[in-house]
Amino acid sequence: MCYAYWQFLKNRHAVNDEGHMSQKQTISSLQADLKRYRQVQEMALLLNSQSSFDELFRAIVSQVSLIIEVDRTSLFLLDEDKHQLWTKVAEGLSKQITIAVGVGLAGKCALQGQPILVHDAANHPDFDSGWDDKLGYKTKTVLCYPVFNRTGELKGVLQMINKRDDLFNIQDQELAEVCAAQVGGALENFQLIEELRCGFESFIRTLTEALDAKHKLTAGHSNRVTEYSLFLAAKANLGEDLIDVLKYSALLHDLGKIAVPDQILTKDGRFTPRELEVMKSHPFWTGKILSRMHLPRNLIKVPEIAASHHERIDGRGYPQGLANGAIPYLAKIIAVADVFDALSSRRDYPKYDGNKPEDSGREALKMDRVFEIMQHGSGTQLDAELVALTLKHRNELEQLWFDLHVLDDE
Amino acid sequence: MCYAYWQFLKNRHAVNDEGHMSQKQTISSLQADLKRYRQVQEMALLLNSQSSFDELFRAIVSQVSLIIEVDRTSLFLLDEDKHQLWTKVAEGLSKQITIAVGVGLAGKCALQGQPILVHDAANHPDFDSGWDDKLGYKTKTVLCYPVFNRTGELKGVLQMINKRDDLFNIQDQELAEVCAAQVGGALENFQLIEELRCGFESFIRTLTEALDAKHKLTAGHSNRVTEYSLFLAAKANLGEDLIDVLKYSALLHDLGKIAVPDQILTKDGRFTPRELEVMKSHPFWTGKILSRMHLPRNLIKVPEIAASHHERIDGRGYPQGLANGAIPYLAKIIAVADVFDALSSRRDYPKYDGNKPEDSGREALKMDRVFEIMQHGSGTQLDAELVALTLKHRNELEQLWFDLHVLDDE
Repeated sequence: MCYAYWQFLKNRHAVNDEGHMSQKQTISSLQADLKRYRQVQEMALLLNSQSSFDELFRAIVSQVSLIIEVDRTSLFLLDEDKHQLWTKVAEGLSKQITIAVGVGLAGKCALQGQPILVHDAANHPDFDSGWDDKLGYKTKTVLCYPVFNRTGELKGVLQMINKRDDLFNIQDQELAEVCAAQVGGALENFQLIEELRCGFESFIRTLTEALDAKHKLTAGHSNRVTEYSLFLAAKANLGEDLIDVLKYSALLHDLGKIAVPDQILTKDGRFTPRELEVMKSHPFWTGKILSRMHLPRNLIKVPEIAASHHERIDGRGYPQGLANGAIPYLAKIIAVADVFDALSSRRDYPKYDGNKPEDSGREALKMDRVFEIMQHGSGTQLDAELVALTLKHRNELEQLWFDLHVLDDE
Repeated sequence: MCYAYWQFLKNRHAVNDEGHMSQKQTISSLQADLKRYRQVQEMALLLNSQSSFDELFRAIVSQVSLIIEVDRTSLFLLDEDKHQLWTKVAEGLSKQITIAVGVGLAGKCALQGQPILVHDAANHPDFDSGWDDKLGYKTKTVLCYPVFNRTGELKGVLQMINKRDDLFNIQDQELAEVCAAQVGGALENFQLIEELRCGFESFIRTLTEALDAKHKLTAGHSNRVTEYSLFLAAKANLGEDLIDVLKYSALLHDLGKIAVPDQILTKDGRFTPRELEVMKSHPFWTGKILSRMHLPRNLIKVPEIAASHHERIDGRGYPQGLANGAIPYLAKIIAVADVFDALSSRRDYPKYDGNKPEDSGREALKMDRVFEIMQHGSGTQLDAELVALTLKHRNELEQLWFDLHVLDDE
C-alpha cells in the first residue's frame, strides 16, 4: 500500500533536478534536511549529558518530537523477562503503561524488529483505539521505530504520533532511524553506567552488612548510620553532589574493624588498655584500607571522611585528634549518626569510651536519655548545630529509628 | 588576517542564491554538507561502540581525518597534574608524544581554549617545525580545536593537519566543532565507565587483600589464586568474555571466610569435627553473600563459580557435593589454582582436608611434591586436563610462583 508513496518520495530529488523551479525546491529541501541533521547532532550531545534515567527519558521524547515534528512521542523499553514493553515517560500520558510484545502497533514493531508506518490509524488492524477513547485524543498517523543496542538486540520502540501538517515521509523515516540509533547508544551507555554504579553500591552494602552481621548485635549498624547521616544531611540542606560521598563514607566508616581481632571486637567485659588501643585503631585502618583503593573521582574524599568519624570537636578524639576546623563536615555528620545509633541500639559489648555506670547495660537507652547524652556532648564531642538539628527533628528521627529497628526485625 | 576569508565563506550561500549556475553550486555544496553531517552521525555511533580506550582513540583520529578530509589527525589529551598534552595515537607517529600546555599550536589552543586556524604553518610564530624535520613531513595547513567535557572543562585538543586539495573553510570549522563535541562526550562516557570499572576492581582487590592480611600467612592468597587462575585460563584458551568472570570469582572465592570466627580461622592445631564443619561452610557463605549483590550483568555467574571452588570431580567436595558435569568450568580452574597455592605456600594452620603426616608442616612443600600431590588428585579431586596443563607449563608456573612469592616479599 505504501510502496508507491515511498517510491514517489525517493524520486523527489531526482525529478527536481530537471528544472529551475525544482532547484529552488531542492535547495529548500536540502536546507531542511541539513537543519534536521544538526538538530539530531544536538540531540546526541544532549542525550549524552543527562544525569539520570528519568532525565534521559524526558530528553529523548521531547527531542524526537521536535526533530520529527510530531505531536507526541513515546519511548517504550523492552522488559525481556515479562515479554512486555513499558514506558516511564510518554507525552500526553501521566503514568507508566505496559503493552505485551506483539500487541498494538508498538508491540508489533517490537515483535518484528521492523519499522511500522501508518497513515490512517483508525483503519489499521493493529491499532488499539482504547487509549484514544480514554484520553480523548485522535491518533491519525503513526511511525514506530525499533531501538537496538550495539550488538543488535532489541531494547525498545520509539513511537511517534501525528506528524504535523503532513504524512510521514522518507526523510522522517531516515531521521527516525538515526534517532533510534542515538537513543540505543545513549540508553546502552546509561544502562552500563547504572549497572556499574549499582554493582559498586550493592557490593559495598552487602559487604558491610556481612561484616556487621558477624557480630549479632552490630548487625545493621553501618546501614543505620548511613540512613541517619542521610537524614541529617537532608535537614542540613547538604548539596546534591556531596550525598554520594556521605553515603559511601557512612557505609564504610567501620571497614577498618576487619583489622581488629574478633576476640577484642566481641569481648564480653571491659577492655584492657592494650585492647582499647587496638579497638581505637579501627578508624585509622578504615582510612588506610580505603586510601589504597582507586575510588571514582567523585569519591576521592571518602577515605579521609570515613577515617574521621571518631574525631571530636574539642580535639580529644582519635585517631588524629583533629580539632573542630580540621574535621571534615561530613565526618561530623557521621559522628552524630554513629553516636545516635550506638546509644539507641542494643549492644553486645560495653562501650569502650567510658559511659556512666547507669548507661553500661546492653539494652538500648530510652530516647530521652539518648538525646540527653547527645546534648551533653554538643560542642565538645559533637558538632553543636548538628546536635541541635537532631533535637529539632526528634520526632522524625525517632520514626526513622522505629522503621530501621522494629520494622526490619519483623 | 583570516577575517575577510571567513566573511567570504560565510556569504557563499547568500551570493550563490542569486543566479542559476550558483544554484547548482548551492545544491552540490548543501549535498556535500549533508553527506558530511551523516558521516559525523556515523562517527558518533561508532565512538559509542568502542570497547577499549585504545580503540576509541584510533576510531576518533581515523574518523575525523575522513570527515574533515585531512591528511593527519591527532587527539591530544590534557594531563591536568602535569599541565601537559599527551597523545596515544597520532596518525603518522608511532609513539606517544607530550607537549606542554601553551607550547606549539595544540598547546596554544589548549591554553586559550579557542580554535586555531593556520593557512601557512611554516610562517606561523607558534608552529614548531621540529616534528616535520624529524618525520620528513611538510605541514601546510592546521586546524586545532579544543575538546571540552559536558561541564565545560578542557579535556584535550583535536589537531587536523593538511586539508586535502584546499584550505580549511567555515564548514570545516563547524564540523570540527561538532566532532570535538562528540569526542568530548564519548571520552567523558568512556572515562566514567573506566573509572567505575577500576573503582569496582580496586575496591575488591584491596578488600580481599585486607581480609587475607588479617592472618599473616594467608596474606596474598586471593591475589595469587587469581594470578594462577588467569595463567591457566590463558593456557586453556579461555574466551575473552569469561576472563572478567574468572578474575572476580577467583578474587572473591574466600569472601565467605568473613562468616568464620577468627578463633577457628587461626586455630593452631587440628580442627574438632564441629570446627571443621564451620570451616567448610566458607564457600557456602561466599555464594550466599555474593548472590545478595546486584552484580553487573556480565558477572552474574560469579556467586555460583566462587561458591564451587571446593567441589570435587568425584562429587565428594563441598558445599554441594556436585559431580564433574555439574561443576562450572571456571570453578574447576579456581580449584586447581587454590590447591596449587595452598601446597606451595607457607601456612599458619594445618590443612583441614587431611593431608598425610609428612605434609603437615608449616613450610611450603617442595615443587616436586606439589605436582605429585596434584597429579594424585587428578580426575578425582581436580580436573584432569587442567592438572595436565599445569604439568605441561610447569616451568612458567614456577616462574610465576617465584614472582608472586619471592619478588613480592623483597
